[in-house]
Amino acid sequence: MRRALFRRLVSVDEAKNILAKNYVPEPVGTEVVSLSEAYNRVLADAVVSPHNIPPFDRSTVDGYAVKAADTFGAEEAHPVTLRLVGKVIVGEATKVMVQRGTLAEIVTGAPIPGGADAVVMVEYTEPRDRSVLIREAVSIDENVMRAGSDIRRGETVLKKGTVLSPHEVGVLAAIGSAKVKVYKRPRVAILSTGAEVVDPGKPLAPGKIFDINAHALSAAVADCACEPLNMGVVQDEAKQMKAALCRALRTADVVITSGGVSIGPTDIIPKVLNTLGKPGVIVHGVAVRPGKPTTIAVVDQKPVFSLPGHPASSLLVFHLFVRSTLLHMGGREEAEPITLKATASERLFPSRGRRTYVTVTLKKSRAGRLVASPVPVGLSGAITTLARADGFTVIHESQQFIEKGAVVDVELFKLSTYYSLTR
Amino acid sequence: MRRALFRRLVSVDEAKNILAKNYVPEPVGTEVVSLSEAYNRVLADAVVSPHNIPPFDRSTVDGYAVKAADTFGAEEAHPVTLRLVGKVIVGEATKVMVQRGTLAEIVTGAPIPGGADAVVMVEYTEPRDRSVLIREAVSIDENVMRAGSDIRRGETVLKKGTVLSPHEVGVLAAIGSAKVKVYKRPRVAILSTGAEVVDPGKPLAPGKIFDINAHALSAAVADCACEPLNMGVVQDEAKQMKAALCRALRTADVVITSGGVSIGPTDIIPKVLNTLGKPGVIVHGVAVRPGKPTTIAVVDQKPVFSLPGHPASSLLVFHLFVRSTLLHMGGREEAEPITLKATASERLFPSRGRRTYVTVTLKKSRAGRLVASPVPVGLSGAITTLARADGFTVIHESQQFIEKGAVVDVELFKLSTYYSLTR
Repeated sequence: MRRALFRRLVSVDEAKNILAKNYVPEPVGTEVVSLSEAYNRVLADAVVSPHNIPPFDRSTVDGYAVKAADTFGAEEAHPVTLRLVGKVIVGEATKVMVQRGTLAEIVTGAPIPGGADAVVMVEYTEPRDRSVLIREAVSIDENVMRAGSDIRRGETVLKKGTVLSPHEVGVLAAIGSAKVKVYKRPRVAILSTGAEVVDPGKPLAPGKIFDINAHALSAAVADCACEPLNMGVVQDEAKQMKAALCRALRTADVVITSGGVSIGPTDIIPKVLNTLGKPGVIVHGVAVRPGKPTTIAVVDQKPVFSLPGHPASSLLVFHLFVRSTLLHMGGREEAEPITLKATASERLFPSRGRRTYVTVTLKKSRAGRLVASPVPVGLSGAITTLARADGFTVIHESQQFIEKGAVVDVELFKLSTYYSLTR
Repeated sequence: MRRALFRRLVSVDEAKNILAKNYVPEPVGTEVVSLSEAYNRVLADAVVSPHNIPPFDRSTVDGYAVKAADTFGAEEAHPVTLRLVGKVIVGEATKVMVQRGTLAEIVTGAPIPGGADAVVMVEYTEPRDRSVLIREAVSIDENVMRAGSDIRRGETVLKKGTVLSPHEVGVLAAIGSAKVKVYKRPRVAILSTGAEVVDPGKPLAPGKIFDINAHALSAAVADCACEPLNMGVVQDEAKQMKAALCRALRTADVVITSGGVSIGPTDIIPKVLNTLGKPGVIVHGVAVRPGKPTTIAVVDQKPVFSLPGHPASSLLVFHLFVRSTLLHMGGREEAEPITLKATASERLFPSRGRRTYVTVTLKKSRAGRLVASPVPVGLSGAITTLARADGFTVIHESQQFIEKGAVVDVELFKLSTYYSLTR
C-alpha cells in the first residue's frame, strides 16, 4: 500500500501545476462590514468618495477672512484697516458675509465666510476697536483650502483588493464610509483522522496521543485571515469518513484533513473523496521531508487538502499549497517568498530523484554564520523541534545531495524570523 | 497660546525619556483562553508538560515487535523464524505479550507490546503461516520511540512571553493543553475632540468634517493586538471633557485623545488631565512634522496620549510612543525598527533647532533609486497622502537641513513595505 503511494510521488512544482489546472482560487464572496470591523479586511470594490474633501472652503490658519483685493499694498509700515463684521468658528455654517472693506475673525479649519477669498494670518494683524490693521497683503486663495482640493466627489480613493491598514481605515473615515464592502473570510473545515488521536483536554487513554495538527492548522488558517472550523476527530472508516467529509464540504469553502503525528492519510480518504465529486483526487504524494503522503483533491469546485501527519511537515505543506489558495480565496495577494542564505549543518539527500523540500531550523553559529539544520525525519523530536521550524530549503532533482557546509537558500515561514536573524 | 506650546516643544527622544521616567509599561493582567483562541496571544507563564510525549513506547515503523536478542545473527540468507502471537493496532492499549521466540505485528505509532524491545521493519520480514521470517538483526530500542523521549513530564516546552504562532499552538496541543494562560489584551479608550468632527455615517452638516483619527487609531490599536474602545466625539468644554476622560480612565488601561484634521488638542485637555491625578501632563509638544502639539500625561498609573490632529502625524506619534507602550502592556516585545535608505525628494528642515521626525512616502525612481517625499505639512493633501505614508526620517538637531538628493534613513511603519520596495 505504502509503496503504491510512493510511486505516485510528484514534486512540489508538479503538484502546484496539477492543482492550478484543476482549481483556480477565487474570492468566496463579499460582505458589508462597519468601519470598526474593517481593519485587515480586503476591499471587494474600489472606493469612490461621495463627498468633496474638505466638504467646504476652509481656513488653514488662525487669522482674518478678507477679500484679497482689500489687502493689496498692505505692509508692516503701511497697514490697511478693515472693519470687523463677525467671527467664524469651527464646526458651524456661518452667516457672516465679508463685503469690500470688511473682514471676519476665523480659526484653522473653520469655513471661509461668504464674500471672502483669502485669510490673513493673525501674526500680520492688529485688532483696533471694531477694526483690524492688516500688515501684509494676501493673494486670492492664500491660506484657504478649497472644497474638494484634497479629494473630489467621485474620485477613486482606494483600489479594489486593498488590504485595510490603519492608514486606509483613516482614508475611509475621511470620506464618511461607515460601511465597507469586503471579501468574505473563507471558511476552512479541519478534520482530524486517526484512531490514536484525542483532542487536548480530554483524558489520554492508553495508546492515545493528543491531536496536534488540527490545532496548529487552525492557527495557520487564522494566520491567513480565514475562519477555521475545527470539526473534530473522525475514525478511519469509510462510512463515518464520508459523512464527515460531506458535512465539511457543505459547511466550508475548503477542507483540510490531517492525521496524528505518526499516521499519514490512509487510503480511505482518497477513496471516499473520489466518490464525492469530480475530479476527485488529483495529487497523491508530494516530495517533502519530513513527510508522509499529501493528497490534494478537488470536489465540485472545492479543494480538499489531506496533509501529512508529521507536524512540521503538515505546516510545510500548508505553507506550500494551502496558504496561497486561502489567501487568493480571501481576495489577498500571496506575499513574495522571504529567503535567507545559510549553510547546511549536515549532508541533505533528496527523496528518490525528486525535487525535495526539507524543513529546517536556523541558528547563528559562534562565527555569526547562519546554519540550517533539518528537522528530524522520524517521530523522534518531532514536537520539540516543531516550534523551531523556521523555513525550508529545496534539494533539486539534479542534485545527488547537498553537501554539509554548502550554502543553501532557506525560505522562511515568517517575516519576523528574517529580522531576528539578520540584525 | 500657540507660541506658548511651541516653547515647550521637546524632541522625540526627550519625550520618550520623560515618559519612561513617569510610566513603566507592565502587562495589564492575565486570563485563561482555550487553545482555539490562543493563536497570536502571549504566554503569561512558562508552559510545563504534564505528560511524557510520546506517552508510551511507540513503534516508528510498520513491522514486527520482537525481543532484539531473538534476531541476533539474522540475515538475508539466514533468516530467523519467530512465532506470531498477535497484532498491535494504533490507538489502543495492547494485551499482547512478546516472549522469547515470538513476535507481534505492529504498525507505525502503535504501542510496543509487553516483552518486546525492538521492531523489525516489514521490508526485512516474510510471513509464513503462523510464523514470520526475520532477515535482519535489530538492536535494543531499534525503531522504538521511548515514552518521554520527545518531551519529558515536567519539562518546560515554551517560555513565558512567547507569542503563539501556529507552531507553538501545535506544541501546546501536543502536551494536551486545552487552556492557556495568556496576557490580557490592553483596553485602549479613544476619544475624539473638536466641534467640527462627525462620526462617519452620520449626516455631514455644513462646517463639519468626518472623524478620521478615531478610526485610524482604533485600527492601529488593533494592529498592536489591543482592544480599541471608541468612545465617540467629546466637545471641547471642560465639564464634558472631564466626564469623558474620567469614564475613559475607569474603563480602559490607556487613553488616546485626538482632534479633527485641522485642530490639535486644545489647552482644555491638559488642564483637565492635571486635575484628574498625578503626575498629570508630562510632555506638552513634540517635534514631529507634520504635527500639532502632542500631549502625554500619566494619571494615577495610566498613560494618556493626546495626539496631533493631522492624520499622518497622528499615526506617526502613535508609532513613536503609543505602539511601544501598548505592546509592552500586552506582554509583547517591541519589534526592532525596519529601515531603508532613500534620497530626499526636496530640502527638509527641522523644527526650531530640535531633532525632527518627518513623515515620508517612498517611491522608486525610474533609475530604481528610492525617493523619500515628505507628507504635506498643511491641510492640503493630508488625506490623499495618508494611505501613502510609509515611514519617517529624522533631521538631527545639529543639521540645519537635509539637502535635496541626500541619502536618509527611513524607518518604516510596516514590515511588508520593506519587501514591496526592495525586491
